[in-house]
Amino acid sequence: MLENIKSPADLSRLNTKEINALAEEIRSVLIRTVSANGGHLASNLGVVELTLALHRAFHMPDDRIVFDVGHQSYVHKLVTGRYERFNSLREYGGLSGFPRRDESVYDCFETGHASTSISAALGLARARDALGQNHHVIALVGDGAMTGGMCYEALNDAGHSHTRLIVILNDNEMSIAPNVGALSSYLTNLRISAGWQSAKRKVRRLSGVPVIGKRIYHIIHGLKKLIKSALVHGNNPGFFEALGFQYFGPINGHDIPMMEQTFEKAKECAGPCVIHVLTKKGYGYEQAEERPEAFHGTPPFYIETGNRIQTPDCPSAGHVMADTLAELAGQDQRIIAITAAMKLGTGLDHFEEKCPGKLIDVGIAEEHAVTMAAGLAAGGMRPYVAVYSTFFQRCYDQMIHDVAMQDLPVVFLLDRAGIGGEDGKTHHGLFDLAELLPVPNMTVLAPGDPQELREMIRWTLTQDHPCAIRYAKSGKVSADYHPGRQPAEFLRWKQIKNGNDIILLAVGSMIKNALEASAILNSKDISAAVIRASVLKPADHSYLAERNQNIPLVTLEEHMETGGFGEYLTGLCRENGYAGPALCLGVPDQYLQHGNHERLMKDAGLNPEHIAERVLRLIRGNKD
Amino acid sequence: MLENIKSPADLSRLNTKEINALAEEIRSVLIRTVSANGGHLASNLGVVELTLALHRAFHMPDDRIVFDVGHQSYVHKLVTGRYERFNSLREYGGLSGFPRRDESVYDCFETGHASTSISAALGLARARDALGQNHHVIALVGDGAMTGGMCYEALNDAGHSHTRLIVILNDNEMSIAPNVGALSSYLTNLRISAGWQSAKRKVRRLSGVPVIGKRIYHIIHGLKKLIKSALVHGNNPGFFEALGFQYFGPINGHDIPMMEQTFEKAKECAGPCVIHVLTKKGYGYEQAEERPEAFHGTPPFYIETGNRIQTPDCPSAGHVMADTLAELAGQDQRIIAITAAMKLGTGLDHFEEKCPGKLIDVGIAEEHAVTMAAGLAAGGMRPYVAVYSTFFQRCYDQMIHDVAMQDLPVVFLLDRAGIGGEDGKTHHGLFDLAELLPVPNMTVLAPGDPQELREMIRWTLTQDHPCAIRYAKSGKVSADYHPGRQPAEFLRWKQIKNGNDIILLAVGSMIKNALEASAILNSKDISAAVIRASVLKPADHSYLAERNQNIPLVTLEEHMETGGFGEYLTGLCRENGYAGPALCLGVPDQYLQHGNHERLMKDAGLNPEHIAERVLRLIRGNKD
Repeated sequence: MLENIKSPADLSRLNTKEINALAEEIRSVLIRTVSANGGHLASNLGVVELTLALHRAFHMPDDRIVFDVGHQSYVHKLVTGRYERFNSLREYGGLSGFPRRDESVYDCFETGHASTSISAALGLARARDALGQNHHVIALVGDGAMTGGMCYEALNDAGHSHTRLIVILNDNEMSIAPNVGALSSYLTNLRISAGWQSAKRKVRRLSGVPVIGKRIYHIIHGLKKLIKSALVHGNNPGFFEALGFQYFGPINGHDIPMMEQTFEKAKECAGPCVIHVLTKKGYGYEQAEERPEAFHGTPPFYIETGNRIQTPDCPSAGHVMADTLAELAGQDQRIIAITAAMKLGTGLDHFEEKCPGKLIDVGIAEEHAVTMAAGLAAGGMRPYVAVYSTFFQRCYDQMIHDVAMQDLPVVFLLDRAGIGGEDGKTHHGLFDLAELLPVPNMTVLAPGDPQELREMIRWTLTQDHPCAIRYAKSGKVSADYHPGRQPAEFLRWKQIKNGNDIILLAVGSMIKNALEASAILNSKDISAAVIRASVLKPADHSYLAERNQNIPLVTLEEHMETGGFGEYLTGLCRENGYAGPALCLGVPDQYLQHGNHERLMKDAGLNPEHIAERVLRLIRGNKD
Repeated sequence: MLENIKSPADLSRLNTKEINALAEEIRSVLIRTVSANGGHLASNLGVVELTLALHRAFHMPDDRIVFDVGHQSYVHKLVTGRYERFNSLREYGGLSGFPRRDESVYDCFETGHASTSISAALGLARARDALGQNHHVIALVGDGAMTGGMCYEALNDAGHSHTRLIVILNDNEMSIAPNVGALSSYLTNLRISAGWQSAKRKVRRLSGVPVIGKRIYHIIHGLKKLIKSALVHGNNPGFFEALGFQYFGPINGHDIPMMEQTFEKAKECAGPCVIHVLTKKGYGYEQAEERPEAFHGTPPFYIETGNRIQTPDCPSAGHVMADTLAELAGQDQRIIAITAAMKLGTGLDHFEEKCPGKLIDVGIAEEHAVTMAAGLAAGGMRPYVAVYSTFFQRCYDQMIHDVAMQDLPVVFLLDRAGIGGEDGKTHHGLFDLAELLPVPNMTVLAPGDPQELREMIRWTLTQDHPCAIRYAKSGKVSADYHPGRQPAEFLRWKQIKNGNDIILLAVGSMIKNALEASAILNSKDISAAVIRASVLKPADHSYLAERNQNIPLVTLEEHMETGGFGEYLTGLCRENGYAGPALCLGVPDQYLQHGNHERLMKDAGLNPEHIAERVLRLIRGNKD
């Protein structure tokens, strides 16, 4: 049936039986495609009916829908003319795993990071009103994303301004990990509450009792009004109503007719409303229903068993980090780990297993995570905050204002630093050095391999200042590693390979490509030294002062060129009278798309061949 | 009396009459000091009794108090051993206008930006629990700061984890400007509600009626429980209770005994609680009560009239911005202005006067402001977001992820860029270029004077991409300005002064000091050219390509050296084969304190004398 759905208009023609059959077909396409390409499965299986009901009740693209986070937009893509390209999902040049405006007119706003949808939808709604248009604007947001403060800021603004706006709260009782926070318990209460319905029944029974006279009836009547305002406007949906929203629900998110009815009611609201929809993550695929976290974002897997097709051949950096931190926490009660809904992704689940009670997961709330960590440090603890590099952008001010300015010993563990991969442009970690290097009191580290990450974490515990460690998702221990290495040896830059014509200074993850580029150069009779620079700030002044100043230096980093280490080093060399870099290679001034890491490194010009070519050009240019 | 208050312990010895007299004395000290030094008056007058009650009920510094924003900590300073230094408030080398850990052991956590206190206090409370300590931790937060999403993230986390924590909501019905947002209306309802008390009375009356039999009694009993849970845990304090907090209040924030009683009750709570305190901003000084916004942050004034001692001799950049935007908005209905509780500070009050309905003030919610602006732009509008440079740090991710990545035409107007002044280290605008320059699609501008700001704003309307304009609070129109200038003339760097020995490339506000440095150099027979660089990204390639490459170039900017324009230009020159800067002067790697702008420029080495000295050293070095 899917191949006949060219646009959402085709959905309206289907009867209930047909639409349910279509839902089943969509589920098998989702499972088949994600099992082959990897991607977000559980969340998309959960919103099949919800997405279909939305496209039947509303008229996209005239009506606008903003998908919070956006990884739950696969079903939307399937019914908005992208079924035929769907097998290219997340591949280089193929469909993105997130809404993209250049992909379809049905994607009105791009997302990737959580908790933005209500703000964006409110902007779209206000634009509609200012330009005298009349369409509906919908934000589809999960209960997990609701832990982010931006959602609250947006609800507060929308509720106050009475803008017509429909917020659909997709409540699957967990975000990426089981949901945390008081609001989550509150939503659970909403779900199980029999409050208003049973209260109505009781009052009706009570006022029907004949022996009660007029005065009592009067009192009861007053009570009825009170109860109604308390329960409907108060007790249960009180949170949303306090913020000025009309509340509908909770309703079954796998019941298409029921949802369509509610959406029709919501269309009539003159102001903002929330529709509370209950869905089940992973719905319809047993493995995903049972382990929704494992199938949140998944690599390719066998459909029958749910097992991964490839198992990683080395521990992730996150595991190494978690193991190291757990070892330290066993000896030092001041250590506490913090994450923002990235327990599994950062590897901190391993830490929590070994050190129960020593991990705080604040939900999708990076700002709070960092300032809370500053409070912990001011109170004598040693907090380690582990988040992805891209989400670290969310707590830039808190890092400066609450941590670094007070010189507090908070350690930032920035996973997924550098070029990401299939998740694409919103998920690369390419701005963290631009965030960190200009900040006084901050030490900035980038391990070349997991062993070095381990040594760095141990070292940070001896420091009374803020530190940040940026690292890629995984990496093998380097061939040159020797177990007797001193913990703080990384504080000196290290020559990995000798060479007399050019020096390749590799930041963190770039060591591998630097060595390969050096081999290519060698084949062209250019002798390239490779230096591992794992401590970025403070830089290794003794190396810079003592090196042969006549050999040109090239910096290599998996980071934006602008604001990166190369520029920082250039300024530092100029200030101190050292010979500065002759060439700084990083990601040029553009957004990288999605695809596999190696392909994207090529797009950025950071593949060994391109590095070698740029070095050759430099050397030839110098000779001219 | 104040001179006898050496520490908060001395407060406990005072009887009610004495403590009220002390409050009066504190008020006159506040008015006297702020009228002479400038500073935050209205907020401090509002919390005199509250601060005294806190220091009587709790035992600082064993108990910890975190002041949200921190500009309301003057009374705290007066009673914690800083009375004698209080006349140095906000002066260079004197007392800070904000809590500072290096100033007193009573300042346990530094603040300056809003909405951080609950997060920080929760961290302090968790540290207490982890280390087996037993003191109280208090966050004092205004209703204005409660519009920030971080507060909600922190309440959500604290409520969920049941950590013992006391949040004092200082509700003065306005933040810096009259408060906005649905939560504000909600708090008003709390204030006027007779809900729970009157409901209790009604139920009591009802169940006292003798004719009602057992079954009815039973139903009523059930109703009572329902009403109680609805009203106490529901209707009114529902917002806080939904988030897991026990709620006390509202109570009169000028009644010391009443507050002390409530604080004693709060000490007994096993989990987190909120105490809702009502205060009046400016309390006790007629002029400030009447115009609390004008006395939020004020320059020196005459006590009798409240009038400012000095009136500015030129319009602020914000006025110029607002006037320009209003002119454009008269012709183009797509224009809409947005701010985050900085309507007066940014000058947008002038815009609103001329264009009612075209300003959106979202409250202290920069993240939401920017993503909402992205939504407006995606919906066809032309949003102009005006915030201070230092608060722009709050929406770093939203600027990248929601605006620049989608290449949406949002214009950021960053006021107070560069070195601030008396507000000190948390308020300087020294990181904005590090935020903006690495971001693809972003145009970055820094006007040299208000006339150029006007031209830039006009020009941005012709662009379909994101732009950011950073500017200082005020500035005179340059002497070289001619009215016939083309609107986009700033896109070329302009030679303001000729010279053959050195080129001073001045970014935005640095033009004045560059000209003065050039005069000093001239007196030493060095001929220094001065170039005005008002467009930073894209840089003026034709200037860079065509200039005499043998004359050394020096960049000057009021921004951190690291991540600043100098480093950016260096990379760009290297990439394109132009001669790069020989010296880049900006703020070195340290936090600048508070004091007047000129003094702080000297601390940063950006005063004309130091610039001239560095240039001399450079030229002598080159000759060696």
